[in-house]
Amino acid sequence: MPDTPTLRLPALATRLASVRSSVVRDLLALTERPGVISFAGGLPAPELFDVDGLRASYDAALATGGRALQYSTTEGNPALRALVADRYRVGGLPTSPDDILITTGSQQALTLLAAALVDPGDVVLVERPSYLAALQAFHLAGARTVEVPGGPDGLDLDALDALAREHHPALLYTVPTFHNPTGRTLDGPSRQRLAELARNRGFRIVEDDPYRELRYSGDPQPAIASFDDAGAVLTTGSFSKVLAPGMRLGWVRADPRVRTALVIAKQSADLHTPTVDQAAAAHYVTSGRLEPSLDRSRHAYRERRDAMLAALPGALPSGSRWTRPDGGMFLWVTLPAGHNTTELLPRAVADSVAYAPGSAFYAADPDPTTLRLSFVTYTPADIAEGVRRLGGLF
Amino acid sequence: MPDTPTLRLPALATRLASVRSSVVRDLLALTERPGVISFAGGLPAPELFDVDGLRASYDAALATGGRALQYSTTEGNPALRALVADRYRVGGLPTSPDDILITTGSQQALTLLAAALVDPGDVVLVERPSYLAALQAFHLAGARTVEVPGGPDGLDLDALDALAREHHPALLYTVPTFHNPTGRTLDGPSRQRLAELARNRGFRIVEDDPYRELRYSGDPQPAIASFDDAGAVLTTGSFSKVLAPGMRLGWVRADPRVRTALVIAKQSADLHTPTVDQAAAAHYVTSGRLEPSLDRSRHAYRERRDAMLAALPGALPSGSRWTRPDGGMFLWVTLPAGHNTTELLPRAVADSVAYAPGSAFYAADPDPTTLRLSFVTYTPADIAEGVRRLGGLF
Repeated sequence: MPDTPTLRLPALATRLASVRSSVVRDLLALTERPGVISFAGGLPAPELFDVDGLRASYDAALATGGRALQYSTTEGNPALRALVADRYRVGGLPTSPDDILITTGSQQALTLLAAALVDPGDVVLVERPSYLAALQAFHLAGARTVEVPGGPDGLDLDALDALAREHHPALLYTVPTFHNPTGRTLDGPSRQRLAELARNRGFRIVEDDPYRELRYSGDPQPAIASFDDAGAVLTTGSFSKVLAPGMRLGWVRADPRVRTALVIAKQSADLHTPTVDQAAAAHYVTSGRLEPSLDRSRHAYRERRDAMLAALPGALPSGSRWTRPDGGMFLWVTLPAGHNTTELLPRAVADSVAYAPGSAFYAADPDPTTLRLSFVTYTPADIAEGVRRLGGLF
Repeated sequence: MPDTPTLRLPALATRLASVRSSVVRDLLALTERPGVISFAGGLPAPELFDVDGLRASYDAALATGGRALQYSTTEGNPALRALVADRYRVGGLPTSPDDILITTGSQQALTLLAAALVDPGDVVLVERPSYLAALQAFHLAGARTVEVPGGPDGLDLDALDALAREHHPALLYTVPTFHNPTGRTLDGPSRQRLAELARNRGFRIVEDDPYRELRYSGDPQPAIASFDDAGAVLTTGSFSKVLAPGMRLGWVRADPRVRTALVIAKQSADLHTPTVDQAAAAHYVTSGRLEPSLDRSRHAYRERRDAMLAALPGALPSGSRWTRPDGGMFLWVTLPAGHNTTELLPRAVADSVAYAPGSAFYAADPDPTTLRLSFVTYTPADIAEGVRRLGGLF
């Protein structure tokens, strides 16, 4: 028998395996250590899930017989697509059910958009800082990411314009509402100008908007897509923050040309999103339980945000800055120069508190003084205790 | 305002959009025309789904509270991974729960394997004919597919060896048990020789084995992976044919080096497979209802296979040949020269019967005289009637 040739591991597998195991996983592991108050993860509070209501909706979906268990169309459950379109229309964005593709979480929407809209070597503009798993999806598609600076009010649009002229990007990826990780929100006039910049400079915008329904103060802002008449803005959304993340239900609102490619990519990815979860979600939204459940979440999360904002001034070192989000799940802290939040994390965990080090959210040149705090998972009392522990650390 | 630049659609999106809408979709559409007896799709019979049992398992999963609705690990539900590993062990293939990655249907397993194991331009050997959606996943990853001929007993291993020497493939994709579309099964000695060929020629094998549990006659064959000690065989499986396809639950059994890459690719694809479906499946398998349910399916599908085999001789033109599968869902017909099953399909549908034209299953040079018949969706009486209509057509 000849010598056994060595099995080659292709370039992507090598690249994949060398990516540091995503911070999300590490953070989940931290969260699960007993006694640790973890502000690290992006976990909605499970005690706020409407378990009874969803249980009834799964039961109703399965009461229709085998249909809820059979193969279904790649585009998604027609009733669910119509309900998503309705919510956009109520929010001022004309949308037909046909514009919606249901995805297996909005993470899948990002991966499909990366496959459809990015050629290897293309430039993708991303916020500095930005959502790690989106950066990863664009990197796996072969994109070169270029960071756009911003401040507490969102992207610096003059800087964006200059970068677009310099790099001819394929697209801009942005979380305009209660941004992950900073919690900031772009105002209406800036959204309009952003859509105009995209039109003038010939790039697309991926408007990732999973936190939109979690507003606790301030006025709703129009979707960036509402200023677009060229099909240049692709908007993604999610039931993860309004129903439950374990259902893995998201969507993308897309122009027909792009949608055709997305549907074929999705067929190859998983044929379709599970039938039963889609049917249960459609039943749940139709049942009228969503609004009261959302109100309960908003009320609890507002209290938790306020508890964290009240505790921070007494705990963080003098010279620290932090954002004051109107909604969502996160706020963003910048400590005085000299602090390194990545190096401090093991000591934090030893003190039974955890946060997400800011370094996880930069495509390049991480700012070591930054960190992300999630305020949604714990009660106000636990938040106060956790922030007290953080204060002891710094 | 300057002229609006044209929005470019990247190469992959163009390629995706130009792929003819997958035959699977077209066939589903045919199936749904009222009155058509469709042997075209790969739909399990919904009346055989254990709807009551699964409904009870979803309810039990949700009775545990918010945990079934929360984010979970990318690798999958630990209990479900252990149950899958158990079934391999009972079948003679030593497997640890850690070897299993749960996927959103086995379709996702194929796409993740394509991402992890194929560099653009790599050769992937595929059976002639082969499963269309797998071909599409490899093509989207940039593979060049090369067809391996075979006969009623499976792959021609001498031809495979010659092609492997000529093309230095990254991998071979095969459905060894109750093959889609032909229904054929590779015997044990051939599986062993196949594993040796892979070792000697330095390629991997993707062993796609979703129909394994649907055996109606003959003896079980060992997994190809059971002859592999180098981690060169990646085996995928599915609950779609044994529980229900709408749950979108599959898995891949993989060597640790490959699995690390698969897990990272899956994080980017959808973070994880829906929590509640996994928990419901684990509960269902543990409840002891799976074996009786599988027995009911096997009994019904055996009768349906036999009904089709009994009806074909009186209906197909003289000189036709067809396979006699020991399990699975499909048999494969070769009509005498001169017939063109793609051209005949609209007439078939006009006569209220449908089949899958063989042309859908070739990577190149389709044989126009072939067609695939699914025997699982209808009762024996409807099968007899459908085959009678087919006979009128030819």
